[in-house]
Amino acid sequence: MLRGRCCTWTVVRTQENGKRQGRAAGQRRAPAARARHRTPPPPTPFGAYVEAVQTGNLLFLSGMLPAIGHEPKFVGRLGKELDANAGREAVRIAALNVLSAARHKLRSLDNVTRVVRLCVYLATEGDFFDQPRVADAASELFRDVFGEDKTSVRMVLGVASLPLGMPAAVEVILEVEA
Amino acid sequence: MLRGRCCTWTVVRTQENGKRQGRAAGQRRAPAARARHRTPPPPTPFGAYVEAVQTGNLLFLSGMLPAIGHEPKFVGRLGKELDANAGREAVRIAALNVLSAARHKLRSLDNVTRVVRLCVYLATEGDFFDQPRVADAASELFRDVFGEDKTSVRMVLGVASLPLGMPAAVEVILEVEA
Amino acid sequence: MLRGRCCTWTVVRTQENGKRQGRAAGQRRAPAARARHRTPPPPTPFGAYVEAVQTGNLLFLSGMLPAIGHEPKFVGRLGKELDANAGREAVRIAALNVLSAARHKLRSLDNVTRVVRLCVYLATEGDFFDQPRVADAASELFRDVFGEDKTSVRMVLGVASLPLGMPAAVEVILEVEA
Repeated sequence: MLRGRCCTWTVVRTQENGKRQGRAAGQRRAPAARARHRTPPPPTPFGAYVEAVQTGNLLFLSGMLPAIGHEPKFVGRLGKELDANAGREAVRIAALNVLSAARHKLRSLDNVTRVVRLCVYLATEGDFFDQPRVADAASELFRDVFGEDKTSVRMVLGVASLPLGMPAAVEVILEVEA
Repeated sequence: MLRGRCCTWTVVRTQENGKRQGRAAGQRRAPAARARHRTPPPPTPFGAYVEAVQTGNLLFLSGMLPAIGHEPKFVGRLGKELDANAGREAVRIAALNVLSAARHKLRSLDNVTRVVRLCVYLATEGDFFDQPRVADAASELFRDVFGEDKTSVRMVLGVASLPLGMPAAVEVILEVEA
Repeated sequence: MLRGRCCTWTVVRTQENGKRQGRAAGQRRAPAARARHRTPPPPTPFGAYVEAVQTGNLLFLSGMLPAIGHEPKFVGRLGKELDANAGREAVRIAALNVLSAARHKLRSLDNVTRVVRLCVYLATEGDFFDQPRVADAASELFRDVFGEDKTSVRMVLGVASLPLGMPAAVEVILEVEA
């Protein structure tokens, strides 16, 4: 459960020997094998929408921005004011907001059975073509958190602009236990 | 049912005392509490696609443009030829086309149990960052029509261009009775 | 099954008399009525994601690019380095990658019961507004392959940039037999 403005939660990363732990389908992740990520408080909408809607086994999440509260952590475009490394960090913050919103809705990320679709939007200008490496910041976070067997499909695109001038947005569909 | 080129349909907005009417889940909206919106005739495709596909309980709709028939009602980009208020009106027309297409497919919008996902695409140029307020024109219309308990997740982005130079497109996924 | 780098597969197009063949729902397409398309080998990811995820009856596919292997077949923007005809060919290659990935996942495209959603992303610059005709290259291919009764909804948009500078991406959701 989220308490206060910032909190931690635990995820599988590796066993002590550095290898990923094999698990049968549906088996819970062993607490001993969890690493700790720090997530922001659950995001709140910038307009007349909600952060998560479940329909059947699918949980749709709003596009998340690299903001804490409504304060942008990055402003600018990749290929102009910002480089790929800043883009990766912006994508990572947006992806942490995805996790925070999902956990807030589901109570526990253990109820996620698959990351179905990940879409990464990057505000770019001119000849910035390193989108896949920047988008990997989200894919790698989700792989660490959910495990490689839950990896999603992906779309990544360069857009003209995003709300408040932020450089990235991350939008996800999850499959969850009914 | 749609008859002729333009027609009206009724939606809940408020009770006579100005408050939203509480309803149990699944309860029909009271006719007495309905306001009237005017919707365009059901849109027709600009290419080799259809306007609506239902799979299970989900109704996917094509991206709708601010056009009546195939005639654009707005041309230009936000931040260049058009301002945010024009953008809001363009988004509203596109969202009315969403409603018209959904009603044409479902016979009645009473069969909509949830607005799942709303994506608003805005053609922008330069430093236009007021996307949330413009996108709210769609969110607010759907809230008026379907009620606050059916509010969707949302993605809003600035794009480089849209068909025929129009400034906005609205794409929606609805949850419907099976 | 796909064998080697390039292979063919068969689709219904027309009967000998030039008319589409009527089929009852669920009926297999007659081999005699099939035309042959040449598809690339199944695409491999450009990052930490997978090409296809099935959840329930829906098959989500990653955004596909006009590349064979990881080699771009087109680089540039519509309205600047490339014209609409090049865009159409790029969209067609990306759409063939969609088919290749779907067949690789499903074993046979006969398991597709509907093309639900098609999204065509085109990298554009300036006043390029011929998106519908370019996107039709994907819609027409899918109509040829799956038949007109399986036609999808569609979104088409001009974006600022796509991975490696390619001019188009095609993203699809299919409905499949459970």
